[in-house]
Amino acid sequence: MSETFLIVGGDAAGMSAASKAKRDDPELEVVVFEQGRWVSYGACGLPYYVKDDIRDIEDLVALTPEEFIEERDIDLRLESRVTSIDPEAETVVAERDGTARKQSYDHLLISTGARAVTPPLTGMDLERVFTLHDLEDGKQIKRLLDREDLSRTALVGGGYIGLEMAEALHGRGLDVDLFEAMPHVLGPFGEETARVVEKHLQEQDVTLHLDTAVERLEGSGGRVDAVVTGNGTYEADLVLVGTGIRPNVGLAEEAGVELGPTGAIATDRCGRTSEPDVFAAGDCAEATNAVSGEPDYVPLALTANRYGRAIGQSVANDTLEPVGRIVGTALVKVFELEVARTGLLDEERIRGAGFEPASVSIEAKSRAHYYPGGSTIRVTMTADRDSGRLLGVAMVGEEGVAGRVNSAAVALHNGVDLDALEQYDFAYSPPFSPVWDPILTAAKVLNGKL
Amino acid sequence: MSETFLIVGGDAAGMSAASKAKRDDPELEVVVFEQGRWVSYGACGLPYYVKDDIRDIEDLVALTPEEFIEERDIDLRLESRVTSIDPEAETVVAERDGTARKQSYDHLLISTGARAVTPPLTGMDLERVFTLHDLEDGKQIKRLLDREDLSRTALVGGGYIGLEMAEALHGRGLDVDLFEAMPHVLGPFGEETARVVEKHLQEQDVTLHLDTAVERLEGSGGRVDAVVTGNGTYEADLVLVGTGIRPNVGLAEEAGVELGPTGAIATDRCGRTSEPDVFAAGDCAEATNAVSGEPDYVPLALTANRYGRAIGQSVANDTLEPVGRIVGTALVKVFELEVARTGLLDEERIRGAGFEPASVSIEAKSRAHYYPGGSTIRVTMTADRDSGRLLGVAMVGEEGVAGRVNSAAVALHNGVDLDALEQYDFAYSPPFSPVWDPILTAAKVLNGKL
Repeated sequence: MSETFLIVGGDAAGMSAASKAKRDDPELEVVVFEQGRWVSYGACGLPYYVKDDIRDIEDLVALTPEEFIEERDIDLRLESRVTSIDPEAETVVAERDGTARKQSYDHLLISTGARAVTPPLTGMDLERVFTLHDLEDGKQIKRLLDREDLSRTALVGGGYIGLEMAEALHGRGLDVDLFEAMPHVLGPFGEETARVVEKHLQEQDVTLHLDTAVERLEGSGGRVDAVVTGNGTYEADLVLVGTGIRPNVGLAEEAGVELGPTGAIATDRCGRTSEPDVFAAGDCAEATNAVSGEPDYVPLALTANRYGRAIGQSVANDTLEPVGRIVGTALVKVFELEVARTGLLDEERIRGAGFEPASVSIEAKSRAHYYPGGSTIRVTMTADRDSGRLLGVAMVGEEGVAGRVNSAAVALHNGVDLDALEQYDFAYSPPFSPVWDPILTAAKVLNGKL
Repeated sequence: MSETFLIVGGDAAGMSAASKAKRDDPELEVVVFEQGRWVSYGACGLPYYVKDDIRDIEDLVALTPEEFIEERDIDLRLESRVTSIDPEAETVVAERDGTARKQSYDHLLISTGARAVTPPLTGMDLERVFTLHDLEDGKQIKRLLDREDLSRTALVGGGYIGLEMAEALHGRGLDVDLFEAMPHVLGPFGEETARVVEKHLQEQDVTLHLDTAVERLEGSGGRVDAVVTGNGTYEADLVLVGTGIRPNVGLAEEAGVELGPTGAIATDRCGRTSEPDVFAAGDCAEATNAVSGEPDYVPLALTANRYGRAIGQSVANDTLEPVGRIVGTALVKVFELEVARTGLLDEERIRGAGFEPASVSIEAKSRAHYYPGGSTIRVTMTADRDSGRLLGVAMVGEEGVAGRVNSAAVALHNGVDLDALEQYDFAYSPPFSPVWDPILTAAKVLNGKL
């Protein structure tokens, strides 16, 4: 009899695992329980859907449920919520239409994703207050923008989703107030990078309120109309709250699956949890940071896809494939800026990982000095003072950032030091780069400081 | 008494060495002999100067002779031609205004650069036939375009300078015939990449003549008016010949300095030649390829700058700094295309370096499938069949190529295999990349074939 690979959650990690497993072993029974009605959707595209760069929400879906079921022969069960897992009996209980059924498995993948943090603010339950995490949120916001004559919107939280939404709402002709409780937006990108982004946001007429905690939301007739902060009250007829996400670990925890120090599900180098035959991947699970060597929680789409795929391969081939490590590479478009980061940038975290941080922040040109149309790229780089090992890079500029950050990511995966990085043979062509690539220049300047 | 560092040739390698040496040791006597009237000029910018994207040729000069002399305190002697080197006596003879003078040194750098190959064609001496290698060529071509009403131009040679000039001349409103003796343009970029470029050139109305050797140039009244090939005769009132460059090694050879297998000056890992206290760098010298481990000749600006700088550092500090290795990274803009390569792509060369080539060529999107405005990136990747080690990458597309190639370059410098490359944490953001970066996808597909 063929084995059963059971997957809880049908987004990136789950569907990657299902597809890879079924492709490598067509005899394998692959069952996916998904509580919603969508699978494998590009939540990263929601701001562009709200902005109307993308017209139909269906365009965000890479493959329809029918395609997974019919073309890939995956037993996909939509609107089915798994309510418990019994690792000892190797069974789960799933509910659909109020009916609970027990299902046994040989291998289990927990890919339950994450949810938007809902801050404990008075007024979060008012109408026209949204978090932005799944397709339904996006649909509701867009419907509202299409039908109502809104004018002032407030974004609570200056993370990358908040900034992408600022661009989207501004693109829809709305005034935007952005509230960030910390002194800078984009915390994980570092202060030097944040300053460039903040200047750009102001140039785009986004009203920035830094160091400004929102105290409560006010409304009338059940509908939001103002954001109250320590510095004043601001009108708003739409409020989007983007204050981070948390891994969905309740199901795993109840089943006795261990969580790691980040609060997400602990996994080993092949994606296995503390329970036998139980894997975890995606936004509910930890990954290992290649720079610090420690567990890390950076819930992003590529990691979910990669880890899911590797687990699918392990299950189908009865091997143990390493899922790989992360270096925390992230990239975001903020109006006309490309903003990227990779590795460790936070001093406290660097010290916690046993390094002594040294850093520089430089400006370089995106093109040869004589080639028209160039702009400035700011590169911030950190290294370990003793060993010279590269620890992290952040970059921001109007061009030439998006592709470039990956070269730093590869260097981080390989644990290279600045002596090596300085001497890499990078591409030079006047329309695309100065002779010394901005990353080489940063490495040279930082190395000179060590 | 302070030591003398003598440099023969004042372009990228020479002036980088001079500047770095003087900065690290202000007591050092740094003497540069340059036979021309310019130093440190961006020859890579000439096509854009001819195109008129850059108005003044002075804009191509990073620093003027006066700046080197006055601000950097370098004893720069323009229009001074070194006619011989005596490594035993540690002297050179330099001529200026017909007067020869002997100059002794403690350390010598030969950075005599390269010259354009002049093919042995009848008619090469006709008026309006140019090679394109130095500022004077560029000035003459531009003056001609500005003053004369030309209509048909012929480019002989489909290397990257030929293609950049095709764009420039087309931008000036001229018809362009491009003649390439080999079956494809851009030989070192590989056939798959070349095909994309060739299609694009044709879409831009450049008339391509592949597999077409030019037999002679014809003219009347001493001025060129046609290009004669085995396939026919083509009118041309301007002919640019770009059939490669050769290292200027005559001076070194006569001094008994050893050349390497490529015909350029052989150097060790610190840029030293076979003679004591004699270094060589830039377009006259070899470098070590980090993939093959063998001497290589890839005369490009960054290498010249890097090697010159390291040698300047060695001389000033009485240390031996490694100059670093190359992986043959190159990047060129061809009309709307970004075209890049790095590593080993040629099967024969790969076998010669002891590897067994396996390769794929894939198409990927430059953005998330749902994000508007994306285009196609073609990635061609080679690896060693046995070890899975990455050997080379070529890429071409309308966006997202220029920055991306450096990630492959870093991977090559570190000798990574496809198992590792597949699992790197690359940046994903819908406006800039699909979830799986095109390089990751190529690695995955190629790894599946091994």
